[in-house]
Amino acid sequence: MPAASNPSAVVLLSGGMDSAVTLAQARADGMSCHALSFDYGQRHRVELRCAALVAAHLGCVAHKVVSLDLRAIGGSALTSAQEVPKDRPQPGADQSQIPATYVPARNLTFLSLAVAHAEVIGATSLYIGVNAVDYSGYPDCRPEFIASFERTANLATRAGVEDGAPHFRVVAPLITMTKAQIIQRGLALGVDFAMTTSCYDPLVDAAGAPLACGHCDACLIRIRGFEGATVADPTRYIGGAA
Amino acid sequence: MPAASNPSAVVLLSGGMDSAVTLAQARADGMSCHALSFDYGQRHRVELRCAALVAAHLGCVAHKVVSLDLRAIGGSALTSAQEVPKDRPQPGADQSQIPATYVPARNLTFLSLAVAHAEVIGATSLYIGVNAVDYSGYPDCRPEFIASFERTANLATRAGVEDGAPHFRVVAPLITMTKAQIIQRGLALGVDFAMTTSCYDPLVDAAGAPLACGHCDACLIRIRGFEGATVADPTRYIGGAA
Repeated sequence: MPAASNPSAVVLLSGGMDSAVTLAQARADGMSCHALSFDYGQRHRVELRCAALVAAHLGCVAHKVVSLDLRAIGGSALTSAQEVPKDRPQPGADQSQIPATYVPARNLTFLSLAVAHAEVIGATSLYIGVNAVDYSGYPDCRPEFIASFERTANLATRAGVEDGAPHFRVVAPLITMTKAQIIQRGLALGVDFAMTTSCYDPLVDAAGAPLACGHCDACLIRIRGFEGATVADPTRYIGGAA
Repeated sequence: MPAASNPSAVVLLSGGMDSAVTLAQARADGMSCHALSFDYGQRHRVELRCAALVAAHLGCVAHKVVSLDLRAIGGSALTSAQEVPKDRPQPGADQSQIPATYVPARNLTFLSLAVAHAEVIGATSLYIGVNAVDYSGYPDCRPEFIASFERTANLATRAGVEDGAPHFRVVAPLITMTKAQIIQRGLALGVDFAMTTSCYDPLVDAAGAPLACGHCDACLIRIRGFEGATVADPTRYIGGAA
């Protein structure tokens, strides 16, 4: 457990690989970590079970789950009955084509709530596992968004105003890494990827654990990542193999 | 009702005076208005009833209420058991003292969800009734926050990226007005202030309508506004008078 004097960080934790590695990095950076997850109407809600496992395994001092019904907003295959695209030839390769799994303004909203949480608990660092290399072309994963959000957060809050100097910093340690590099980093930091889930359209086994579809963009990028890292993929797929 | 060809706007609607006048202004600007409210665990949840009345009265094409449990975040007298300050001598006068009713990063979060909604429905204008004159000193009511948020929103979204040019604009028509000016503007635009509620700590009558406490910052600023505008105050107070 981190000492009480360690600086506190809010870490956005989805239950996926990238946020797990980000949390492990925050711990390695000496942070006392408060994980934050969202029950937002996602079809892959089983990821919250994974987030809880990861938070405990990596020694978070707290893990909060905030309810926010993004189904009321809609506009995404992840929060509606719209089908999740499957077996796209090169997911993430053409980043001018933002796929149907894009959730409008999701990182903007999640980071905003992370700022709120950070302000309440007195944390100044916000960790987020966005990645602008092996990703789905989501605009809110790019460095220019992260930098602009950080400026806005410091103008939006009591803590930001009372400090004078920028109070919050947004840390995106994976932003320029490939998926294979993220996996290598995670293994070096003690992440157990079997606890994580990436699939946008999973089933759940009798014990409540996820079974990945193996065909959505998130699965394809994850599979390619393990191949690139030459590491065995611990993911459990529907039918036993992707 | 606006013609289908009118540009669409998302208008943040709390049920209070300022957002009602902002909505009336958006209608006067020729907008087809989609009102957006939040059921966020606020102790003055009765404001949502007022928001529905105002949305209907001012001809919104739709009114959406999104659930978001900010009690999980806490840090505010509005979302916790913490007491709402009463009878402060000059609420809003000392803007270096942000009061206990500040909700961490509330406008940042609400605007983020407004961007999400706007992206889904194809609206490019976001109206918000923030005011940096007769207000409680909240940092997220200041022009510099609004301008920075607008830049961030355009970097955060598919619509912002695909457009190249800035896609979303945040309109804050009341930001430099006094409360008395806001009331005068509202009356000129047909707002019925009896439909609105400002109180942070209201009771509710047998019919479900709010009765204002008359002593919280929001009540004191509202009362002073009606006095300044030399307009009769239609608010119903607990006990019959403030």
